Amino acid sequence: MADISGLELYAFWRSSATFRVRVALNLKGLTAHEHFINMDAGEQRSAAYLKINPLGGIPSLVEPGHAPITQSLAILEFLEEAQPTPPLLPSDLHGRARVRSLAGMLVSDTHPLITPRVRKQLASGNGSGSGNGIDDAAWKAWQTHWFSTGLAALEQRLATEADTGDFCHGDQPTMADICLASIMSMVQVLKISIPATRTIDRIMAHCNALDAFARAQPARQAGAPA
Amino acid sequence: MADISGLELYAFWRSSATFRVRVALNLKGLTAHEHFINMDAGEQRSAAYLKINPLGGIPSLVEPGHAPITQSLAILEFLEEAQPTPPLLPSDLHGRARVRSLAGMLVSDTHPLITPRVRKQLASGNGSGSGNGIDDAAWKAWQTHWFSTGLAALEQRLATEADTGDFCHGDQPTMADICLASIMSMVQVLKISIPATRTIDRIMAHCNALDAFARAQPARQAGAPA
Repeated sequence: MADISGLELYAFWRSSATFRVRVALNLKGLTAHEHFINMDAGEQRSAAYLKINPLGGIPSLVEPGHAPITQSLAILEFLEEAQPTPPLLPSDLHGRARVRSLAGMLVSDTHPLITPRVRKQLASGNGSGSGNGIDDAAWKAWQTHWFSTGLAALEQRLATEADTGDFCHGDQPTMADICLASIMSMVQVLKISIPATRTIDRIMAHCNALDAFARAQPARQAGAPA
Repeated sequence: MADISGLELYAFWRSSATFRVRVALNLKGLTAHEHFINMDAGEQRSAAYLKINPLGGIPSLVEPGHAPITQSLAILEFLEEAQPTPPLLPSDLHGRARVRSLAGMLVSDTHPLITPRVRKQLASGNGSGSGNGIDDAAWKAWQTHWFSTGLAALEQRLATEADTGDFCHGDQPTMADICLASIMSMVQVLKISIPATRTIDRIMAHCNALDAFARAQPARQAGAPA
């Protein structure tokens, strides 16, 4: 186990990717000093922040004396290797692959499609070919499509695969649950209507009963609306 | 090291995510029997394939007696754990985090935005609000925006970070090079014009000199146009 202390986290209150890192830190009993990057004011594209993360993504994790670590899954894997207890991945080869696959369905195939930079690009007319931009209703429809598609596919896997337990994989939380909770938190914050997801809802009840998840909720972060 | 043999790969000739898995298999001296899923004919959405991968994504890797593994990064991590030599990740904690972060910039923040299912959604008018769909020029502009954004951010990191070597991290290929080569292969196949990327181009020359990368090129796969 490496000795990691003095962590600094560049964060935004409702950022789904930041939520993932907060839960992992909480589960592992680690703390990070948070720097608030106001995405509503575009601070993630400021010259100062782009030096930390050239893609302008939130969050970035900084350990003193080391380069910033970006990309939420890379940060989760880093925390898992630096502080293996409690584990966020199963111990067996195929279980680990399953958890990473479930996480990827959310982090790679769902979340990137509904970020602010996608709305910005849709609004520019680059994509529609019309130059007429996108209104709130069309953006909501776009978000609903991608959340529904990703969560329906995940629900089907979780409902039918034998390794699903109280949590996505067995009876302890893993990276898959962290990613799922981060997406369900967005669904709630953004008030998106999705089809029924009974297995996901059952798993989320187990997640939300854990203090590590509850404390990471967007509404409880600095910068959130009162 | 686990004994993995009899691997089956559900693949499409120009799929960027399949390319990643092919390179990893080649580097590790593993072989997989390929099943051709014709994405141009929508076979990834067939009932038979959706049983293997409910999200309809390509590729899926199947080891006899085990559930299919989906999501290219999950497959790369699986192959790394099952067959650690030669390694696709550095041995040190922070190097591993850097490689996974570079890979994530491409696999999570670039590639998902330019997949066929995104074009399908743009074409439906859901997103533009116009219902007028998207023509070839607008789709090309959309692709160019996201490839350019992702690759410019990666170029900046690779050009300025001390750990960059002949490859993205040091002088041996890692998961980051595999993901980079998969994206640059798409740029080539789709004939996308991107800004100059001198460091990436230098690294790609090292990748392309390796048989493991050359053999994975889309044009050399079954199903590719003559």
